[in-house]
Amino acid sequence: MLADAVDAALTDAGIDEAAIDEVHHANFAGALTDTQNHQAPLVADLIGGAVPTIRHENACASGGFAMWSAVRAIHSGAADVVLVTGIEHLSPLSTSEVTTAFAMAADELYEIRNGLTFPGAYALMARSYISEYAPEDYRSALSAIAVKNHEHASVNPLAHFQSTVDLQTATEAPMIADPLNLYDSCPISDGAAAVVLAAPHVDTTADRVRVRGVGAASDHLALQTRASIHATAATATAADRAFEDAALSRDDVDILEVHDCFTIAEVLALEALGFYAPGEALEAALREETTSSGWLPTNLSGGLKAKGHPVGATGVSQIAELTKLLRGDHPMAESLEGPQVGLAHNAGGTVATAVVHLLEVLDDD
Amino acid sequence: MLADAVDAALTDAGIDEAAIDEVHHANFAGALTDTQNHQAPLVADLIGGAVPTIRHENACASGGFAMWSAVRAIHSGAADVVLVTGIEHLSPLSTSEVTTAFAMAADELYEIRNGLTFPGAYALMARSYISEYAPEDYRSALSAIAVKNHEHASVNPLAHFQSTVDLQTATEAPMIADPLNLYDSCPISDGAAAVVLAAPHVDTTADRVRVRGVGAASDHLALQTRASIHATAATATAADRAFEDAALSRDDVDILEVHDCFTIAEVLALEALGFYAPGEALEAALREETTSSGWLPTNLSGGLKAKGHPVGATGVSQIAELTKLLRGDHPMAESLEGPQVGLAHNAGGTVATAVVHLLEVLDDD
Repeated sequence: MLADAVDAALTDAGIDEAAIDEVHHANFAGALTDTQNHQAPLVADLIGGAVPTIRHENACASGGFAMWSAVRAIHSGAADVVLVTGIEHLSPLSTSEVTTAFAMAADELYEIRNGLTFPGAYALMARSYISEYAPEDYRSALSAIAVKNHEHASVNPLAHFQSTVDLQTATEAPMIADPLNLYDSCPISDGAAAVVLAAPHVDTTADRVRVRGVGAASDHLALQTRASIHATAATATAADRAFEDAALSRDDVDILEVHDCFTIAEVLALEALGFYAPGEALEAALREETTSSGWLPTNLSGGLKAKGHPVGATGVSQIAELTKLLRGDHPMAESLEGPQVGLAHNAGGTVATAVVHLLEVLDDD
Repeated sequence: MLADAVDAALTDAGIDEAAIDEVHHANFAGALTDTQNHQAPLVADLIGGAVPTIRHENACASGGFAMWSAVRAIHSGAADVVLVTGIEHLSPLSTSEVTTAFAMAADELYEIRNGLTFPGAYALMARSYISEYAPEDYRSALSAIAVKNHEHASVNPLAHFQSTVDLQTATEAPMIADPLNLYDSCPISDGAAAVVLAAPHVDTTADRVRVRGVGAASDHLALQTRASIHATAATATAADRAFEDAALSRDDVDILEVHDCFTIAEVLALEALGFYAPGEALEAALREETTSSGWLPTNLSGGLKAKGHPVGATGVSQIAELTKLLRGDHPMAESLEGPQVGLAHNAGGTVATAVVHLLEVLDDD
């Protein structure tokens, strides 16, 4: 999988593998899925290189943080061309084993040891949100997000689920962790992704987009320790930093890929990122504001919910999808009116880590 | 353990935790030892911060690569003060489980699946070396390294083994993986380490050393794929890059901390780093050239061999030990004549990844 992703990225970039100065790799659970830590040299092997290579792990945000480190590699002057990769290979595990593995993204002492699972953690966040804002029809609103993201994924040849779902099916799906049901939850996916970053002066035939700004932040690992269970402060801080770094405002953003491991996570992300006031993003989904024809097209790739969530690959894949959307060579691009700026939001665990990238179309002149 | 290390580092640095801009954390096996991936936010928690934080994993070189990333954080201008941390907590595992965990630093497909263990891998490297150079008394020479590193560790209050061993005991120890016996092997250690990095303009009362140069490289993960099983090309390339980055030569180096997970690893490191011609470092140990009174004092901390090898902490600990040695506030410092430049060498797995740092005394003027 990763070899295919790397080949596709290098071909797209029009850059020879010999030009790569560094490899930044993301993976979450290789020790559990493949008895393989120390994966980074295997990726360097793929490009035949002896270049510096490093694995980054921040749970579900591993890919976004690999990207964050790669951007810095170029900013520091240490590298001109960097390969960013991410992979997760969850199929060797049973569903029960995956649940155990995913829980390791939460706090072992206060959460895992006491039996909290990842769907359970996001259900707590959803309950906290619902309790504070008392949305009238949260069930339909959550399901509307699932319907939208499946709709987007249905035309994405790289999506895990290339199928639509109707609102009634999504609403009546079996409960996983109340209020989150089967269609509120992302699937367990295998997947790999690769992105090539190059300094502005590097010659390439590719249709490039620019990394305009980056921001990252952290929060207490355990939900119980946070000021708010649902406000996801790390996302808010990461976004503020990215917009400051980019010298852009929220109004400049045309499309978003946000971390929707559960439908409620998309709601929390859009609020913490500053696109909706607290308590307002959930019902906005019922008004179709975040579909490809809405004012804030979100997760046009299908998102984690329907494109899939191969943990270490997810954040890297967001950058790849956003790049294609901005360039206009993505299946969903024709429904957009020449987007100029895209935002990628990748969150680790219950948003104990978060990283935001702002990409923009690079004009030829 | 990590809280203690962080407290000690901040106190030593004379820097308030509120000044920290980022945390770079190293850990190898948290998923296996503590059911805890996504450790980086826990470290940010220790300093009460919401700062960006990231875990790096490159097997036994995780700590060195966390340091490498932290140096870059400052070079890129993204951060003024960075906390580098590393931890490994191996005591929850049985010896058999540790052997399984360590094997994940080698190639799953070509090595682990076929039963290779880590002592077995380094025994292959030792056999390849012995076969090529036919050293006369390799048994005594290997043991002389163990004797030296135990001697150094015996005065280090932070060492795992604060005891000496005589040549006969080391030579006659039970065989682990021929030709490596018990005293050729580092112990299974719990440990944590922390280092504070600050940009030159940051005010501090600390007695500082400067990071003069850094270099990193990778090699094929599986031994069988490499040009030479014992030449450890990644170390050679990483060293070349570090010396170029620092504009220093081998002659400028006064003291070294090198990656001696097994006694043979110290030999391979000293040759690949360029301090000995191939085939010459092993017997040099018998001539006591690498003791505190030799011309190339190596592993004055006691090294991985006797100070211990808490995997994720090891590379960070090398920087801490070297810093104290250069400043003169280390138990072994009085045997040195004012060292100005120190080299730290950290290797991942069977040196599929390697990172070299060059530190130097920072003159007040």
